[in-house]
Amino acid sequence: MIVIGEKINATIKRVKAIVENRDAEGLIQLARAQAEAGADIIDVNVGTGTGTQADEIDAIQWAVTLIQQQVDKPLCVDSADKDVIEAGLSHMDGRPCMINSVKAEERNMEDIIPLAAAHQAMLVALPMDESGIPATADARLEVCKKIVRVCEKHGFPADRLFFDPLVLPVSSDTTQGMITLDSLAAIKRSFPESKTVMGLSNVSYGLPERKKLNAGFLYMAVYAGLDAVIANPQDEDIQMAIRVSEALTGKDPRCRRYARAFRTLK
Amino acid sequence: MIVIGEKINATIKRVKAIVENRDAEGLIQLARAQAEAGADIIDVNVGTGTGTQADEIDAIQWAVTLIQQQVDKPLCVDSADKDVIEAGLSHMDGRPCMINSVKAEERNMEDIIPLAAAHQAMLVALPMDESGIPATADARLEVCKKIVRVCEKHGFPADRLFFDPLVLPVSSDTTQGMITLDSLAAIKRSFPESKTVMGLSNVSYGLPERKKLNAGFLYMAVYAGLDAVIANPQDEDIQMAIRVSEALTGKDPRCRRYARAFRTLK
Repeated sequence: MIVIGEKINATIKRVKAIVENRDAEGLIQLARAQAEAGADIIDVNVGTGTGTQADEIDAIQWAVTLIQQQVDKPLCVDSADKDVIEAGLSHMDGRPCMINSVKAEERNMEDIIPLAAAHQAMLVALPMDESGIPATADARLEVCKKIVRVCEKHGFPADRLFFDPLVLPVSSDTTQGMITLDSLAAIKRSFPESKTVMGLSNVSYGLPERKKLNAGFLYMAVYAGLDAVIANPQDEDIQMAIRVSEALTGKDPRCRRYARAFRTLK
Repeated sequence: MIVIGEKINATIKRVKAIVENRDAEGLIQLARAQAEAGADIIDVNVGTGTGTQADEIDAIQWAVTLIQQQVDKPLCVDSADKDVIEAGLSHMDGRPCMINSVKAEERNMEDIIPLAAAHQAMLVALPMDESGIPATADARLEVCKKIVRVCEKHGFPADRLFFDPLVLPVSSDTTQGMITLDSLAAIKRSFPESKTVMGLSNVSYGLPERKKLNAGFLYMAVYAGLDAVIANPQDEDIQMAIRVSEALTGKDPRCRRYARAFRTLK
């Protein structure tokens, strides 16, 4: 399982303050703690929601440059703004990098996919287009095909695409969990060269004991074919769910990582 | 999720003593505790492994009669011996009952399926035949079809069949988890009227922290289409996994059971 650490996200109040104050110590601590907890990629979202585009461009350059000096992991530039993504990518030191994300909207694909191709980035792709989020797994799969066609046009390789089946809360509609899992399985079957990725926490929005639901959803998603997860790598429920689900699905040779994890986790 | 309480099993040392000593208090306590913890069906296996057939027939009559006086739940007669099963069923007081289990061996099917039909019992069916346990999901599905044909011949209805996809330890072969889950999904697709059932604990044999693996496997199996589980209903990891997985797969309207469970479980 590829773990993408989600904690550097300026929509979180404490992180917003770190970004606004250019608190280098605070930023490095967030990056380092996630790397030490096993994150394979560090997501970097410096969009505070209240700054200008110029602020965000300056912030992503600051953050990307600083984290690379301290942490030896690929970074994921997380923004809906093409110029912010480009600013982040242009400050990469040559290590592997990722973009989060592109949608299946024509304009957005034509902005982001050539950029990902030029920087040889991995790319998170969301099966939603000008009409919004498709209601069924089949319809989400169709939207993924649109993304694949534009990737092929720009020479972006399938094995650097990470499809996110989109996760919506079960509290408002209890069918959403199955729609996400069935979308994931359908995408994995149709595009075996590409990878799948999910942010877990949306599924539990509005319910108590959210960590239990997030971890439970991860077990199911691993069986459905999940390759990567956007999560808090320091969350022990998530760590255990990864180790257990990999042991159960044949992704942990001789169950060795599982046996090791159970010794270090409670 | 239909929970079949597994604790009355005379291969467990403490239970063996209860059966051998005809310890009514001990037996009732095991049955009642499981019913109170939410078991829908109580499995009754009085095979100590060291007694004669006559001993086991006497024991099943004693156990079935006694439990029915104290606990208001369907019972599952758990034995490989046709005469023991028949003795157990003949002492039922008219409540719904279950047989655990029939294999796809010709002789065994001709013994057990007519018995299940005559007593209107539910029937756990194992996709293994004279050649043993098939190695792949497709092969297990073929063996299930043999069972269905014999059921049709004897007028045993599909909706009282509970297929067990067979669970083997991942510690000796890490592919076994996926084979079981894929068998389960294939069986559910092919026989939508029938139900699926699994004993969890085999999957974790030989590994540490077995409860974590058992609960993790339950999450995956619920997504794959599991209807019933043979488990310890007092195990809080299992209780939580059932509540969480039902909330995530749309089987818990408005997530109400989940919300209630999180208040009573830690």
